[in-house]
Amino acid sequence: MPALEFQTEPARYRHWRVEYDGDVAYLIMDVDPAGGLGDYELKLNSYDLGVDIELNDAVQRLRFEHPEVRCVVIKSGKDNVFCAGANIRYLGKATHGDKVNFCKFTNETRLGIEDASENSKQIYICAINGNAAGGGYELALAADHIMLVDDRRSAVSLPETPLLAVLPGTGGLTRVTDKRKVRRDRADVFCSTEEGIRGAKAVDWRLVDEVVPNSKWKDAVAARAHEIAGRSDRPKDAKGIALTPLARKIEADRVTYSHVEVEIDRARGLATVTVRGPSRSTPASIEAAHALGDKFWPLAVARELEDAILHLRVNEAAIGVVLLRTDGDAKAVLDHDDFLGKANGDWLMREIRHYLKRVLKRVDVTAKSFIALIEPGSCFAGTLAELAFAADRSLMLIGTREGDNRKPAALTLGQANFGWYPMGNGLTRLETRFLGEPKALDALKGKIGEPIEAEDAAKLGLVTQAYEDFDWDDELRVMLEERTSFSPDAMTGMEANLRFAGPETMETKIFGRLTAWQNWIFQRPNAIGEQGALKLYGSGVSPTFNRERI
Amino acid sequence: MPALEFQTEPARYRHWRVEYDGDVAYLIMDVDPAGGLGDYELKLNSYDLGVDIELNDAVQRLRFEHPEVRCVVIKSGKDNVFCAGANIRYLGKATHGDKVNFCKFTNETRLGIEDASENSKQIYICAINGNAAGGGYELALAADHIMLVDDRRSAVSLPETPLLAVLPGTGGLTRVTDKRKVRRDRADVFCSTEEGIRGAKAVDWRLVDEVVPNSKWKDAVAARAHEIAGRSDRPKDAKGIALTPLARKIEADRVTYSHVEVEIDRARGLATVTVRGPSRSTPASIEAAHALGDKFWPLAVARELEDAILHLRVNEAAIGVVLLRTDGDAKAVLDHDDFLGKANGDWLMREIRHYLKRVLKRVDVTAKSFIALIEPGSCFAGTLAELAFAADRSLMLIGTREGDNRKPAALTLGQANFGWYPMGNGLTRLETRFLGEPKALDALKGKIGEPIEAEDAAKLGLVTQAYEDFDWDDELRVMLEERTSFSPDAMTGMEANLRFAGPETMETKIFGRLTAWQNWIFQRPNAIGEQGALKLYGSGVSPTFNRERI
Repeated sequence: MPALEFQTEPARYRHWRVEYDGDVAYLIMDVDPAGGLGDYELKLNSYDLGVDIELNDAVQRLRFEHPEVRCVVIKSGKDNVFCAGANIRYLGKATHGDKVNFCKFTNETRLGIEDASENSKQIYICAINGNAAGGGYELALAADHIMLVDDRRSAVSLPETPLLAVLPGTGGLTRVTDKRKVRRDRADVFCSTEEGIRGAKAVDWRLVDEVVPNSKWKDAVAARAHEIAGRSDRPKDAKGIALTPLARKIEADRVTYSHVEVEIDRARGLATVTVRGPSRSTPASIEAAHALGDKFWPLAVARELEDAILHLRVNEAAIGVVLLRTDGDAKAVLDHDDFLGKANGDWLMREIRHYLKRVLKRVDVTAKSFIALIEPGSCFAGTLAELAFAADRSLMLIGTREGDNRKPAALTLGQANFGWYPMGNGLTRLETRFLGEPKALDALKGKIGEPIEAEDAAKLGLVTQAYEDFDWDDELRVMLEERTSFSPDAMTGMEANLRFAGPETMETKIFGRLTAWQNWIFQRPNAIGEQGALKLYGSGVSPTFNRERI
Repeated sequence: MPALEFQTEPARYRHWRVEYDGDVAYLIMDVDPAGGLGDYELKLNSYDLGVDIELNDAVQRLRFEHPEVRCVVIKSGKDNVFCAGANIRYLGKATHGDKVNFCKFTNETRLGIEDASENSKQIYICAINGNAAGGGYELALAADHIMLVDDRRSAVSLPETPLLAVLPGTGGLTRVTDKRKVRRDRADVFCSTEEGIRGAKAVDWRLVDEVVPNSKWKDAVAARAHEIAGRSDRPKDAKGIALTPLARKIEADRVTYSHVEVEIDRARGLATVTVRGPSRSTPASIEAAHALGDKFWPLAVARELEDAILHLRVNEAAIGVVLLRTDGDAKAVLDHDDFLGKANGDWLMREIRHYLKRVLKRVDVTAKSFIALIEPGSCFAGTLAELAFAADRSLMLIGTREGDNRKPAALTLGQANFGWYPMGNGLTRLETRFLGEPKALDALKGKIGEPIEAEDAAKLGLVTQAYEDFDWDDELRVMLEERTSFSPDAMTGMEANLRFAGPETMETKIFGRLTAWQNWIFQRPNAIGEQGALKLYGSGVSPTFNRERI
């Protein structure tokens, strides 16, 4: 199977287009039925992962390339149909792993839409003309405001349970109860009603925010979009920066970017991701940073790391453990953090920080073990120190290495570690880490900017283990042999539980609770067996269920 | 297969005994290796569902029969071993449904222990002499205080992932990170270390509260127990009441209790549970209520309803939908609530309310659709109205029935609906229901005690649908035909998500997140396939894993 590609650009879109009207952009879904990743037809604006990769790209470019856009209207480019949700043929043929990765990525895309509304004030609304079924309605649920045409035919629905014997896989159940706050018994009725709910009842049940007669539809959508655009704090007259194609070389066992390198050791089930610190000093001014555009180190590294993580997820499924390394000058990393911190009023710098946050969140929900290796020459500082805190474990070398005259490894905290990058649970990685020892966390604030060597880092609770040079190789080897020998499934479940202590949010509910139930159901014979509903959908044959309730 | 029996009593225990020392009780686990429910040996204090049914009974009796007990010490009756966790042969042979129901019940038992510590101030501590592995340590985690003997051999461990390719199934991962607040990377090391962690390191890592040398063990445990007993607010010189055997008749399609009746319609996959209101008025005094003992209506109905729910769960797996009916005088129900409310300072009345809370929580996590039917003659009032709010849907009859001269159905709110029975998410069922409309909830407080008929109840959002007599039968029939035609697995996943909106707690994390991941893993070939770890454990053959990370 060819490697799946997450990089794209508008000129290559087959399923989406964007139209601009001043401070409003229309993000138009017009799926090419023949443009699926596999051998199936994408009818009625149904989608597969390829369609969502374009959506993700479009959302991302709107934030970086179109600062003037204050409201984004998601709508359909087809008459009388909004979106039929995930394509059933695609789901029916997909492996379990494909389905799980598909749902994970589409969930991230929708959370990215919510992040744009909340944190970039590029506020999404959804204008539903026609049926929004399943994933179609879940896409709408990601918007801040949902409009539905009132034409006695257009409806919203989550028909997965009655039709397909699976759950809405992209946050639908959680957003219905927790974002829209639909009453639970109505949610139950809604989710078991194939044809969905339309008109005034959809408003009354909180499923949509307004319904508009067909005759007034276009004007009402435009008016609402401009009104919502007025609530945004985005700058006037700002100029976007271009997200140019990544400089990337893919070889058999290696992917090389400008600041990130991925080495694959398939025999051991291991990958090593090395992130390099800035190769030049911070720009002289905010304007100079804008002029650097996507070559500005924090943005470049975010894009490359994101691509590397997504690549490992879907194209290297048998890699169970990822070693995280950094290479470079800690001070240069912290200088860049300082630059971002000071320029926080600038829209682009704000975007970059939120983007780094989203990339780190992708690490948090990736089903691989992450082990950070903190060695001489590394630059785990500030933003890059988050990688060590995102890892399941971190190992740090005490002192120097024989034959290596570099200084002992140090980990350096920065302001970025104290609030810039909340996890899905709403806490920073350090807050989550020190949930039981808030005083230890307070003490760490006093250490900002101070290089912390291994034994101190271990004492402060910042790393899992510290080893001297003569123990390092053996300890690491034993740990990796052990880790890669465990059941991949049990590791996935264990990590999904241990990574998110403390409060739950809609986001952790979606990834932690809903996803887990969906994964379970995606394996049940009632869904995927020869007589299962997902297998038989559209064949004219009714599924046969094992009626046991579990 | 014979029906599984949840009722037992100390005289019939094979695995536990209780010893009393003033205000301290020792709950001693001494599993009879030959006493398993199936054909396997319960070595090293390992357990199956039968062992946990006794534990549940013992915890319950301590609360009702032994008000003098202020601290309960869980310990092992065997030398040098505390508890090896769930029996692997049992798990290896169990069906998927058996495993899921086993984990659910053991989770409820451990939450019941925490409820006793928190709300009855019958505070549990755990004294670990020997190894506490897997479910053994999870049992300890339910205690408020964990003591470990420091003998260079006794350890706590969660070896499920490395040994069995499954997760700790009884809340272990969640309690390690969220209750004990163990640092996430240490939790990762702990959960992948077969032999576990012992001595001072176990304290340092927050896995236990104290370690004690063997020479001082017995005295230290007794001293700690008496010290903790001193913190309790339980009454002096109170006299317990006996939980006598339930009056219950089991027939082929019917289970009859004194106030509860279960009718089974296997052809339709339906059960009807009817709860009868009090047949006599409230006792003249608290003393009189004590004298009634387990015949006091609120307690009797709690015990019977609990048994009925557990029976349906494990002995009637193919029943997907449960109709909830009540029968009796709403005023008598509310009078009993008032009695409980006024006597809230009394330890027994407090116990009864917390017990009703736990029984209602069992409904919340039962994998069956609950539909409340509110008809003339019913008594959905106060405590019994919670059944309607616990249901996935509620249907209410408008007006009277032809040929039935009873008054129109009414639903009556009482003080019990506004705080007595929080769900696992910490909110009342009404708070959860009206998450999106807090003002509607406020308005309902003004309606306490006022019978609300169908159309008003629908308007107030208290019921899902209201139908007139001539529509009722058809609407109900269509809904039930539809509901019972859906995939049982999808319904389970849907209900598990829709029932718990709003905040998450350790309890909802355990049932919503951890359980779902565990259920997923319990189906994976890496665990249960012919080459899976759970299947091969103890055979001397190593498992063969599909290495794909999902």
